[in-house]
Amino acid sequence: MKTAIYGYGNLGRGVECAVHKAPDMELVGVFTRRDPSAVKTLTGAPVFKAADICAHKRDIDALIICGGSATDLPEMSPKLAAGFNIIDSFDTHARIPEHFAAVNAAALASGHTALISGGWDPGMFSINRLYSSAILPDGCDYTFWGRGVSQGHSDAIRRIPGVLDARQYTVPIDEAIDAVRRGDMPELTTRQKHRRECWVVAEDGADKAEIERAIKTMPNYFADYDTTVTFITEEELKRDHSRLPHGGSVIRTGVTGLDGENRHTIEYKLTLDSNPEFTGSVLAALARAIVKINRRGDYGCKTVFDIAPADLSPLTAEELRAHFL
Amino acid sequence: MKTAIYGYGNLGRGVECAVHKAPDMELVGVFTRRDPSAVKTLTGAPVFKAADICAHKRDIDALIICGGSATDLPEMSPKLAAGFNIIDSFDTHARIPEHFAAVNAAALASGHTALISGGWDPGMFSINRLYSSAILPDGCDYTFWGRGVSQGHSDAIRRIPGVLDARQYTVPIDEAIDAVRRGDMPELTTRQKHRRECWVVAEDGADKAEIERAIKTMPNYFADYDTTVTFITEEELKRDHSRLPHGGSVIRTGVTGLDGENRHTIEYKLTLDSNPEFTGSVLAALARAIVKINRRGDYGCKTVFDIAPADLSPLTAEELRAHFL
Repeated sequence: MKTAIYGYGNLGRGVECAVHKAPDMELVGVFTRRDPSAVKTLTGAPVFKAADICAHKRDIDALIICGGSATDLPEMSPKLAAGFNIIDSFDTHARIPEHFAAVNAAALASGHTALISGGWDPGMFSINRLYSSAILPDGCDYTFWGRGVSQGHSDAIRRIPGVLDARQYTVPIDEAIDAVRRGDMPELTTRQKHRRECWVVAEDGADKAEIERAIKTMPNYFADYDTTVTFITEEELKRDHSRLPHGGSVIRTGVTGLDGENRHTIEYKLTLDSNPEFTGSVLAALARAIVKINRRGDYGCKTVFDIAPADLSPLTAEELRAHFL
Repeated sequence: MKTAIYGYGNLGRGVECAVHKAPDMELVGVFTRRDPSAVKTLTGAPVFKAADICAHKRDIDALIICGGSATDLPEMSPKLAAGFNIIDSFDTHARIPEHFAAVNAAALASGHTALISGGWDPGMFSINRLYSSAILPDGCDYTFWGRGVSQGHSDAIRRIPGVLDARQYTVPIDEAIDAVRRGDMPELTTRQKHRRECWVVAEDGADKAEIERAIKTMPNYFADYDTTVTFITEEELKRDHSRLPHGGSVIRTGVTGLDGENRHTIEYKLTLDSNPEFTGSVLAALARAIVKINRRGDYGCKTVFDIAPADLSPLTAEELRAHFL
């Protein structure tokens, strides 16, 4: 399976590592909007100009698009689905129907297969929400994120005047998780589910009290949470906060029995050292599935809900039944 | 979706409760080898003779077979797959290829769709082993069961002379789970993963020391485990051990990055008040999927690996994308 990567940031490097580990996949190249001569890949895979990708059409079975959801993917994914089987990690929830329709039209018209919104949330967490609610219809589910770095929240802090750099951790609140696991089915406010931890490097002479106030009152991002702000040096940020861990849990509790007398809890939990490498690993497995589905003549846009688990694996159906069932 | 149950023990009752809760499913009837007039269903669903099932062919979209794996299912499932879309929970691991082949031949020949080995293990645990190993190929996975009642082990104790009744709990060992969760990737012996707790009612005057010895030295069942035996009265057994809780975890830890420098843990954990009701709930959701697959003209035998998550849900693809992705 010949794979290529379109966009080479943290996620692109994560995909590169995953493809490198896959026994049945080969990385044909990395496509970038930057000057290819200025980009060095981790594995030595060749780098090409994004604009030249059409010349490589016949060499690529699956193209994994590693762009941002805000502006890159809405434009890139439909365009590239006209020429390739594509996989993206589009995560702007409200715009999924629109994005799905655009990618689906392009893929159907050209006989390609596409997957949008791959990764772990959306992605593996979505699959688990679906399975659990299909099994336990009389129940509630809860998603907790963290402890992990939120890039969006870190960026929001960096935009405040006087801030040089920042790292924000989303932290789930243990008492809330415990109540959910016990099967209490609590109604939880935003503040009761997560807190936010900010590590900030301020410019010399900046008004730290004002920065802290600006963070804690920022609507959507921080105002609805208990937020802590700690000022550190650039060296400390580099030393203690340079990794990108993340994770979280999807928990569903529900009842069965004629009178709901029996209680059950299903929990899916991820603890990740590197968010982009894990996400890249999920995208690589989904790319394998999309190529298989395309070879069966099933075209158009898919989501993780449409993909049978077997298609993610390099093993045959017989091997899977023998070793995993 | 018209559903029927074939075999009416604990699992059959669990399926009955699940179908009762499903908005899109109706229970047409229960088929039993006992005298139908002696069987009373929980929901008042009609009871028919197992031998008369062919007369109901046109009324049944999916038949959920609730028989035992040792002797019932190898005979029932292929036979019934010649006339119905069937779902079973066959769990004799070594005989799955053979069972699959027999059911597949019958279903293909008659234009039906079948699912074997549904439930939680095999079933949801199998799906999670597959997903996790496809995402993290460079890793190890571990399955822990319990704390929960093992019917097979309870039965084995009951066969010992002098034993009136017994209940056996399989208990995972916390230290082992902790080591796995930490990502230590330990090699664990049978004894290091689980211990066995036996609650036994002995006949008056029975040799308790001999019963305890017989349990603890029983090959396959107990000899390889740290086993505790506690003698209790019939009343205590009824009062404290009449439920059928179970559960467990599938945990995979693996590494990513060019040098395996980042570690990840994926855990799927079930905590179940009632093993048969949860298993019945999984089988009901799988029955829904099998009917959808059959209506698309896809015949033959499937396992949980072949079923896209969306097919388990009563919701449409649009609803799933909007609410679960």
